[in-house]
Amino acid sequence: MKNVDSMAIAEKAMSRIKKGAFLTVKNGDELNTMAIGWATIGYVWQRPILMVAVRDSRHTFKLMEKSSDFTVSVTLPNMNEKVMYCGTKSGRNVDKFKEIALKTVDSKQVRSPIIDAAGIHFECKIVFKSAMDPKFMAKDFEKIYPEKDYHTLYFGEIVECYEIDAGD
Amino acid sequence: MKNVDSMAIAEKAMSRIKKGAFLTVKNGDELNTMAIGWATIGYVWQRPILMVAVRDSRHTFKLMEKSSDFTVSVTLPNMNEKVMYCGTKSGRNVDKFKEIALKTVDSKQVRSPIIDAAGIHFECKIVFKSAMDPKFMAKDFEKIYPEKDYHTLYFGEIVECYEIDAGD
Repeated sequence: MKNVDSMAIAEKAMSRIKKGAFLTVKNGDELNTMAIGWATIGYVWQRPILMVAVRDSRHTFKLMEKSSDFTVSVTLPNMNEKVMYCGTKSGRNVDKFKEIALKTVDSKQVRSPIIDAAGIHFECKIVFKSAMDPKFMAKDFEKIYPEKDYHTLYFGEIVECYEIDAGD
Repeated sequence: MKNVDSMAIAEKAMSRIKKGAFLTVKNGDELNTMAIGWATIGYVWQRPILMVAVRDSRHTFKLMEKSSDFTVSVTLPNMNEKVMYCGTKSGRNVDKFKEIALKTVDSKQVRSPIIDAAGIHFECKIVFKSAMDPKFMAKDFEKIYPEKDYHTLYFGEIVECYEIDAGD
């Protein structure tokens, strides 16, 4: 494992997140992970920020609302099937970790664990959130929200960022 | 000038934006530019997104609220003094362009022009905005907002991204 500068790895992380990454969140004994394909990364409020979006219809949404942190695990292509599975099943109905033998490892600084796999891992503390108000959306967003299940945007301060090699 | 993939250039752009870039916005005959040091970049809503933050006490805020687009010009170190000037003076009181001989060039796709200088330029259409609600901020944000002049977050779809070399 090696610590990396989250901005120096922004390009690599974003190009992979686009193809699917794990958003993992834990609150008390409740743990879930979902597939994400969207995120932004940068500096705001004098700190490195990773922003993720979760629809309010998602099981993960309830956990995110109660948690103070989350992790994003940007894994390698060998995990693509597992990412896909997590993108089609809800933690409401299945124990994803059990079904596809997905393991987590404790994070260094936050309660939500990371996915136990090679890749780039972000540990984030939620510092701001914003439920999307459709009044302020572009008109062509309507096709993204036919069921009006808008996203809440969660801004996580990146408190740890590291890369785990396949051989680690 | 060469077109570039906005994500491929994310790292370079972010490391420079941190040191200061120009946020330029035009509405009708009104034009202003301000210095920004914060932004995030990534994919959301199936499109490349650059997010910027503007305090509601800023002159630029009024223009952003009326405009449908903005540009971000990430210039080279030789423009640092001009960026600094724009970070300390308000367009309410001075014509920044005249005072420091700052020039703009028409954008390719949006109404707001870019700064006429070498660097990385983003043309963005505003697709979503969110006025920060202090209810959902981390407690230690209070020191960023002693006067409660919170930021509005503007999410711009990057419709053009190009790099202008010093020799262009």
